[in-house]
Amino acid sequence: MPGETATRSPRSITMRLGAAVLVAVVIWFLPAPEGVTGEAWHLLAIFVATIVGIMLEPLPMGAVAVCGLAAVTLTQTLSLRDALSGFSHSVIWLVVMAFFISRGFIKTGLGTRIAYSFMKLLGRRTIGLGYSLIATDLVLAPAIPSITARAGAVLYPIVKSVAEAFDSHAGNHTERRIGSFLIINSFNGNLITSAMFLTAMAANPLSVQMAAEQGIEITWLSWAVAAIVPGLASLIVVPFFLYKLYPPRVKRTPHATEMATTRLKQMGRLRRDEGIMLATSVILLILWIFGKQLYVHSAVAALVGLTILLLTGVLTWRDILAERGAWDTLIWLSVLVMMATFLSKLGLVGWFSGTIGAAFTNTDWMIAFLVLSLVYFYSHYFFAGNTAQISSMYAAFLGVAIAAGTPPLLAALVLAFFSNLFSSMTHYGTGPAPVLFGSGYVRLADWWKLGAAVSVVNIIIWLGLGGLWWKFLDIW
Amino acid sequence: MPGETATRSPRSITMRLGAAVLVAVVIWFLPAPEGVTGEAWHLLAIFVATIVGIMLEPLPMGAVAVCGLAAVTLTQTLSLRDALSGFSHSVIWLVVMAFFISRGFIKTGLGTRIAYSFMKLLGRRTIGLGYSLIATDLVLAPAIPSITARAGAVLYPIVKSVAEAFDSHAGNHTERRIGSFLIINSFNGNLITSAMFLTAMAANPLSVQMAAEQGIEITWLSWAVAAIVPGLASLIVVPFFLYKLYPPRVKRTPHATEMATTRLKQMGRLRRDEGIMLATSVILLILWIFGKQLYVHSAVAALVGLTILLLTGVLTWRDILAERGAWDTLIWLSVLVMMATFLSKLGLVGWFSGTIGAAFTNTDWMIAFLVLSLVYFYSHYFFAGNTAQISSMYAAFLGVAIAAGTPPLLAALVLAFFSNLFSSMTHYGTGPAPVLFGSGYVRLADWWKLGAAVSVVNIIIWLGLGGLWWKFLDIW
Repeated sequence: MPGETATRSPRSITMRLGAAVLVAVVIWFLPAPEGVTGEAWHLLAIFVATIVGIMLEPLPMGAVAVCGLAAVTLTQTLSLRDALSGFSHSVIWLVVMAFFISRGFIKTGLGTRIAYSFMKLLGRRTIGLGYSLIATDLVLAPAIPSITARAGAVLYPIVKSVAEAFDSHAGNHTERRIGSFLIINSFNGNLITSAMFLTAMAANPLSVQMAAEQGIEITWLSWAVAAIVPGLASLIVVPFFLYKLYPPRVKRTPHATEMATTRLKQMGRLRRDEGIMLATSVILLILWIFGKQLYVHSAVAALVGLTILLLTGVLTWRDILAERGAWDTLIWLSVLVMMATFLSKLGLVGWFSGTIGAAFTNTDWMIAFLVLSLVYFYSHYFFAGNTAQISSMYAAFLGVAIAAGTPPLLAALVLAFFSNLFSSMTHYGTGPAPVLFGSGYVRLADWWKLGAAVSVVNIIIWLGLGGLWWKFLDIW
Repeated sequence: MPGETATRSPRSITMRLGAAVLVAVVIWFLPAPEGVTGEAWHLLAIFVATIVGIMLEPLPMGAVAVCGLAAVTLTQTLSLRDALSGFSHSVIWLVVMAFFISRGFIKTGLGTRIAYSFMKLLGRRTIGLGYSLIATDLVLAPAIPSITARAGAVLYPIVKSVAEAFDSHAGNHTERRIGSFLIINSFNGNLITSAMFLTAMAANPLSVQMAAEQGIEITWLSWAVAAIVPGLASLIVVPFFLYKLYPPRVKRTPHATEMATTRLKQMGRLRRDEGIMLATSVILLILWIFGKQLYVHSAVAALVGLTILLLTGVLTWRDILAERGAWDTLIWLSVLVMMATFLSKLGLVGWFSGTIGAAFTNTDWMIAFLVLSLVYFYSHYFFAGNTAQISSMYAAFLGVAIAAGTPPLLAALVLAFFSNLFSSMTHYGTGPAPVLFGSGYVRLADWWKLGAAVSVVNIIIWLGLGGLWWKFLDIW
């Protein structure tokens, strides 16, 4: 949950903070390499310290971002105007608005209704049950950028109640009856749907903004179009793969469809607020898809969706003010986008890419990019969270890939998609991981082994089938 | 409290919304007067409808602001970049940060300790008790922009417990023993302290920004310096005036000092977090006062203060995310500042001021400005809240005053100060009014009569003594 962090002793907090400050001080006073201005170098020092802070987490990410912002302005590394510029970025408000809108799915119960409807339809077998949860996640993904909300607030309660209905509990050797499969399946499905839409994960806009700084435009629609084919393929293949590799003992689940039918009956007919929520999501999708033709920016579309929900009373202003995840994202995302923007503007990313990229001049770009993207992917073993890695590595890897000759849009998209898919491998690499892992249904060793296996499947699908699709789309 | 609004029937909401939309549509399709661009005229239509929405309040102010923002962007009256520009305004983050910091006074109990310390010192008589509450308010004002928090969360609980200790209760004919005086006195003191600092009231930055659009710079320090003399005079005169006009029956209150002593004893010595809070406020004041010499912008100072509180754990990130008043202010203030900025930039304010100002060409500016400022002041009978009036009238009245020959900085400051003082007259004109009036200690007729009387006292002090002080400061 936003605003929370593991409870640490004061000593541990001080050590972690000290480490971040030390990094800043050391870099700050090192001589800037040739070709890098002092201003850029100082910003790099604060930026790296902020990333170290986000990784060591002496305080929650938002608080670390506030410290970074204070450092940037107090040292006058950037002007106050530049330092605050992140807060008016359209891509940030797109995500913040989507956070507000997503509350509507949970508040009205529409998210749960969608899940039970899919379950009623597909839930006769365990594999179908797995697909029904993934279908729900897919339907909700475009408008719910909080992956933790999708996985934790909508899907997890359903997975848990289904598992328990089949007498599969954590901690009494019945996990593998059905619960373990449903948990690991929902987790991996969630990562894939996150990769499919700009608004399906809070840090996706960070990738988009970093690509924009290198002259590459990615819109809501172009992201979705590029991701749809490999995304759907992954959503079909991965559950089946997990089902074979990590089979549940219960394979047939007629009881699940009954359960779904009962729950739907209890919910009654679609209520007014659910109907409005449904209509709003349709309008939103239409505006996001046809935004260019209708001259409606994706952030304006989200603003319109929010306005509908407020005017109809589906969401109250009190709901908005209580939506901590949105305010949290507003702060950390704005600060990171601001820093990333100015690292690029001040020429640091270009300098770094040029320097490292020079090593690849005699290499075929395909091989160079394959190596770069795999290194990027598997570096996620070292990161607790998508944001930390995107902000520290995305821009640099993109720059180097382009310098090595990779078609820019291709490189930007692959790295952006990988920034979601790379979370399969650990139980700490993304928000939903600790929630789902914490359920106790999957042993740590299994989580890691399955995660590693799925990572290979995803990479093959996205680079292979995806590559063909992007060729067809003329992206490269 | 932010996010709340009177419970209205769906019918009433629809009527109020309809009225706002109707206003927008009518203005939109009226022909723009000569000298006004279509763009400016359309922005005016949306702006006026937003103000009507803020006044009729079909939804809370923040939600109305979201609707206004949606209208501006969806109609492409302004570009998305311009429409979102308000969110990165330094004056907004100054106030938002101050909101976060102010939580520290309440959370650590430092605010209450300060109140009891003053009470111990001055509380032997009822009038002294009144002054002690006002002194507390004055000390807290620079760092607590939520007047409702100062009056409602810090002072009101103390007023109530003191009144009850003297057997003065609401609703059983004992109000006038002491409670009524303390309530009306705290209310009026609160308005005066709000007028004394840029950061003492959430909408003060709106005045500053509107003045900036007309080329008038008001900093945190220049505001405080201009306000200090008339402000202190008002804080001394008004309680005494109320004491004579509306005397409490209990005049001597030795018990109050005993009570304060006991409470302070119960609180024990200054705790770590209170000490840090105290030190932070001192640092903050130093940075705000010497900001120019130290090259620290007032918003950076606030950011530094917040960082100290976060690093020391006095405030947690969870506290920040739960600070609804700050997020509420962020939204409505950014939208209003944005609209006001572009109404000026698009020439509308200049056009209006030139047109109306022409009527004053043969009038002495002193008389013209006296009339204008009095009309501005007493118009507040028609407004529920400072923001509604500042956003609808401040820029225009300032423009006209300047056109009539008033020294610009003088006009900007007087209107900004009046934007706080004008709230004395009604029980709905500002946030703390309903809270304190709602205590039931003061009859409605008394509230209005005393408010009207105090308004005259304040105007005489601020224009008279204030005028001399500003002459001395070379403001005119």
